[in-house]
Amino acid sequence: MPTSGGDGQPPARRYGPTERRVIEPVRRFRPGDTVIRVTRPKYRGFERRGSDRLEASLTLEEPRSPLGRLWRVLVGVPISSELEIHERLTKKKALAVFSSDALSSVAYAPQETVVVLLAAGAAAIFWSLPISIAVVMLLAIVVFSYRQTIYAYPSGGGSYIVAKANLGETPGLVAASALSVGYILTVSVSIASAVDQLVSAMPTLLPLRVELGVGAVVLVTLANLRGIRESGSIFAAPTYLFLVSMFLMVGLGLFHLVQGDLVVAQPAQLPPPITALTPILLLRAFAVGSAVMTGTEAISNGIPAFKPPESRNAARTIVAMAIILATMFLGLAVLIVFAPIIPTAEETIISLLAHGVFGESWLYYLVQFSTVLILVLAANTAYADFPRLASLLARDGYAPKQLAFRGERLAFSNGILMLGLMSALLIVVFGGSTGALLPLYAVAVFAAFTLSQSGMVQHWRVERGPHWHLKAGINGIGACATGLVSLIAASTNFMNRDLPIVPGLPLGWGSWLVLVIVPAFIWVFRTIKEHYAESEADTALPTDSEELDQPLRNIVVVPIAKLNRPAVQALRYAQALSNDVIAVHVATDPALAREIEEKWPTRGRGVPLTIVESPYRSLTRPLLQFLAELRRHEKAETVTVVLPEYVPDTWWQHLLHGQSAQFLKLSLLFTPGFVVTSVPVHPKSDEDAEDIVPLHA
Amino acid sequence: MPTSGGDGQPPARRYGPTERRVIEPVRRFRPGDTVIRVTRPKYRGFERRGSDRLEASLTLEEPRSPLGRLWRVLVGVPISSELEIHERLTKKKALAVFSSDALSSVAYAPQETVVVLLAAGAAAIFWSLPISIAVVMLLAIVVFSYRQTIYAYPSGGGSYIVAKANLGETPGLVAASALSVGYILTVSVSIASAVDQLVSAMPTLLPLRVELGVGAVVLVTLANLRGIRESGSIFAAPTYLFLVSMFLMVGLGLFHLVQGDLVVAQPAQLPPPITALTPILLLRAFAVGSAVMTGTEAISNGIPAFKPPESRNAARTIVAMAIILATMFLGLAVLIVFAPIIPTAEETIISLLAHGVFGESWLYYLVQFSTVLILVLAANTAYADFPRLASLLARDGYAPKQLAFRGERLAFSNGILMLGLMSALLIVVFGGSTGALLPLYAVAVFAAFTLSQSGMVQHWRVERGPHWHLKAGINGIGACATGLVSLIAASTNFMNRDLPIVPGLPLGWGSWLVLVIVPAFIWVFRTIKEHYAESEADTALPTDSEELDQPLRNIVVVPIAKLNRPAVQALRYAQALSNDVIAVHVATDPALAREIEEKWPTRGRGVPLTIVESPYRSLTRPLLQFLAELRRHEKAETVTVVLPEYVPDTWWQHLLHGQSAQFLKLSLLFTPGFVVTSVPVHPKSDEDAEDIVPLHA
Repeated sequence: MPTSGGDGQPPARRYGPTERRVIEPVRRFRPGDTVIRVTRPKYRGFERRGSDRLEASLTLEEPRSPLGRLWRVLVGVPISSELEIHERLTKKKALAVFSSDALSSVAYAPQETVVVLLAAGAAAIFWSLPISIAVVMLLAIVVFSYRQTIYAYPSGGGSYIVAKANLGETPGLVAASALSVGYILTVSVSIASAVDQLVSAMPTLLPLRVELGVGAVVLVTLANLRGIRESGSIFAAPTYLFLVSMFLMVGLGLFHLVQGDLVVAQPAQLPPPITALTPILLLRAFAVGSAVMTGTEAISNGIPAFKPPESRNAARTIVAMAIILATMFLGLAVLIVFAPIIPTAEETIISLLAHGVFGESWLYYLVQFSTVLILVLAANTAYADFPRLASLLARDGYAPKQLAFRGERLAFSNGILMLGLMSALLIVVFGGSTGALLPLYAVAVFAAFTLSQSGMVQHWRVERGPHWHLKAGINGIGACATGLVSLIAASTNFMNRDLPIVPGLPLGWGSWLVLVIVPAFIWVFRTIKEHYAESEADTALPTDSEELDQPLRNIVVVPIAKLNRPAVQALRYAQALSNDVIAVHVATDPALAREIEEKWPTRGRGVPLTIVESPYRSLTRPLLQFLAELRRHEKAETVTVVLPEYVPDTWWQHLLHGQSAQFLKLSLLFTPGFVVTSVPVHPKSDEDAEDIVPLHA
Repeated sequence: MPTSGGDGQPPARRYGPTERRVIEPVRRFRPGDTVIRVTRPKYRGFERRGSDRLEASLTLEEPRSPLGRLWRVLVGVPISSELEIHERLTKKKALAVFSSDALSSVAYAPQETVVVLLAAGAAAIFWSLPISIAVVMLLAIVVFSYRQTIYAYPSGGGSYIVAKANLGETPGLVAASALSVGYILTVSVSIASAVDQLVSAMPTLLPLRVELGVGAVVLVTLANLRGIRESGSIFAAPTYLFLVSMFLMVGLGLFHLVQGDLVVAQPAQLPPPITALTPILLLRAFAVGSAVMTGTEAISNGIPAFKPPESRNAARTIVAMAIILATMFLGLAVLIVFAPIIPTAEETIISLLAHGVFGESWLYYLVQFSTVLILVLAANTAYADFPRLASLLARDGYAPKQLAFRGERLAFSNGILMLGLMSALLIVVFGGSTGALLPLYAVAVFAAFTLSQSGMVQHWRVERGPHWHLKAGINGIGACATGLVSLIAASTNFMNRDLPIVPGLPLGWGSWLVLVIVPAFIWVFRTIKEHYAESEADTALPTDSEELDQPLRNIVVVPIAKLNRPAVQALRYAQALSNDVIAVHVATDPALAREIEEKWPTRGRGVPLTIVESPYRSLTRPLLQFLAELRRHEKAETVTVVLPEYVPDTWWQHLLHGQSAQFLKLSLLFTPGFVVTSVPVHPKSDEDAEDIVPLHA
């Protein structure tokens, strides 16, 4: 009868391997005088950190393959968990860190508003002024609404958190997926617009639009895998450079406009109007223009990074940012209408105006350069926000838990890679066109705004502090306004026939994509959550369980295909696991079976051999049935199948050795009560290798 | 110190599991009277076949999935190894079995000869008569040459065997690869020609040429997977039907020709001559015409299937076949030249002549039908020959040994599938054109002929029996003649611009393909042989080996990721394998590590736990290094790593659980001295499943 190694009585407390004593001879000066030292074993590649506690050293992380070395060069040396930085930001630095996304929007929102209006002829661009005023009013509403969030959620109030806490799971998930889409589009739109600005200054790059965009996404992704964090100093310089050059340009532009000597290049030929100036067109222009507010919520996500008093500093910063943004935006709108500035496919409004104000001087290049830079920084903020949101979702069980792991450089590497991949894909699908991406962006961002503000309304209704009616009212107005914008953006840009999905078909990309992706994300979130909950319940450790406390009865079987070195090694290994090993040969070739039977008494190591004849020449099925019957008769909880596995040097050689072992493993993996163990037998030349991770010491 | 279960002393002889005694209560009539029976366990799904010997029953082979059931319907119930048939054939049946390939060639060889000549205008087809006479002379030489092989190799003398035995390994492999290519082309050419005949009788099918060809290959492949064997009775009827209808047609045709009242439909318009009647054109026509001899070698492969005296009967059969073939071929040539019969893309020579002789009567359809049938039978012979050759190569170590396994219906299934796949591919690439495939066929077949005859020359030189000079001379003439034809076929059809590889490029398919495939096959054969030799040496069982006789020292390690049910199951399992188990936790999250440490004293089953802190958050590398160091310090031959593995229900759920275990397995598989064992933990609902193969009894 087979017996298991562990036999019922609770084992005594034993020393762990690193605490076991080693006797080392120590040589002394006098010959014949042997001195021994009793010591603990030295584990190379580790530092001792206490009783049976080691710490892995950096040498273990050395790259070993050429690909690994390339990755090391691109991404850098791993960073220890202890070095995580929790920097606190002054208001000035915080403005730089959190506003690049919002401020950079002036590079594309006015531009694309004018492009939409131009469809109704050059005269229609006058409407960009009233639209801009409406957008600024909307901005004021949103900022007031968010000020309240900042005070109510001093530890950071992203849309996902606020909506989930106040409205429940589903609205929270809607917000999360709208936000995810928003972050992806932040990268796509910012990079596409940066490419527009670059191309305006260097028109020879025009045909490389998409390639430049994808290249920029790859660079920003790599930089973030290296773990660029929101360090105020890195961000401050480009942001303030952008503000200075922008205010200088708009100010000088307005001065020249009043003087009457502002000359902006006009397009050689205006495209003919293709539509009348309908309300739909105006709404579409408004939806595009409101994209200037994207990024406004960043400050309310980042409150804990402010110096105390955090909420107050954050509230002041958001107001300051809104005023700066509104000023730039309105100034630009006035210039656009009265100069007038009419953008072309080759040159953006910013570039036309900079040319008009500064000519071809270095100041022109300063404006363009700082605009490109702040747009890239804006894309970069999504690389901090999206992986953070993904890790929150992963921690709540809605996303694969791999998204919550920090990579070797402390960044959420998986989230970063995912973001880079999806935004690059969008740039390719939309041909690098900022104008085509913008409506989608507006839909997603304003949907998230709406849920966050609605959540705040509910928050006040439940909390009922002083003036709660007023506070709920402000947030309510914010929710209504942003909800309306979201609806407008979705309905007026539902499908764009200029971007066909399949060339030739009248189906185009458009904001419907967001309306498909958001529910799809929610479905994925829920399915993942459900599975994690199920597996959590399945793997939970019962507080007391008869079964889990008893020793396990296991029997060991070695299938023999041929009586060779791997087979004997497998028998030796099996005998190290159990005193009662059973060997079985499935006989498809009688000659081979006879040969094994003849050799068995001398080479079989005393193990009983059962022959299973298989007249239909199948190996797996008779073996599986034999194992199942054996388990039943021997009343074993587990049957361990020890398979000899010859490991050839290259992958194609595996194909030459039959895959019966793999089939068997796969079949048994899905059958409770069986454990398959391969005993790898290596080509003799390989068996010298000892160290797994070669150490330099 | 950990100890292994097997502890040095040789274990005593034990009963195998099927011989162990089981005590069964037997109920009797009187109450309170308990009778027990001591019996051996009943293994369901098996028959007992002796001491510790079972035989798997057919019930185990029952298909379990819908796909499995479909396969069962297509391929049939498995056949027991005992039922292998060794039928002996009379000369008449043998003629039918082995000649379908050769005799069917009259359906395409004369046809394609005329097509080649037509390029020089209608007058040029006169040359098909002298060419046919030359081909018949060649046939006589080859048949005389092969008669000698039949007497010299009474156990079957295929080109591979003869060339390898007499000329050495390389010529043997050249013959094997030429033969392989030849067999593939036998299928492609015969099926393509069968489709030509079918389409002549039913012109509406013309646009479906390629589809019909591929469909026929699939059908023949399936039939062979079912295991149609060379049963004389199946083959006799169609072959003799073909011979009768063919001789009737040719005879009546000649009669009417002499009478002067043979009327064969002439094409409405002849294509204009595109070339002069050059010697190259004549040689090309000759090469194509000599394809009539393909299949001649079949009899010399199949000598053991003849009734005794085998060699004499086989020799008589090959001569009879040659006479029948030559008569048909020459008769057709005379009719072609003097009728004249000019084939078109829509109608073959056979069809035109049958129409001329029989009109639209049922006899016309008999000719067409029997021709299609014999062509399909010809293709079918390759399905017996190619897998047999492949299994010979596999047994000699030149091909993957899977090719030597007989499938559930006793057929060499892998070889059959391979043949079907490649010949279907050729039909697609060559657009189902018999004429385009024929030159390749001739190159391959005549190359194999040449090697076989050259081998015979060497055979006589070594053996030196009576008249050996004469015998060597006959084979030498055969070798020279066939070698010349092979060269002609290769050089005059080197590249066919009408079959471009990439449309638009001036590179076409042609006989160069054979000159590429044959060396490629040889290289593959050699590489495989080399690897098998190496692995054979690696896995050989040394006659006496200190190391292999000693017990193996093994230690068991359980990496703990989380202290849950799978982890405790893994610990229980590990304790069944060894008295000294070590647990290790790689800590990337200090909070989780603390939680495990706290619970360990109560739930750790007394196993010592080592904590390895990983400040760079990598799991695999610190663990691998720890295991390597542990192995070194504990002086263990193997380290068994027991991993808890939660097995979700579906594949995508695997993705949600991280792949660290898979990475670890892969890394350790290629490192000698480590064994990885996954302990599958199933969702609780699955754990009731007991039987692996559900039995109907």
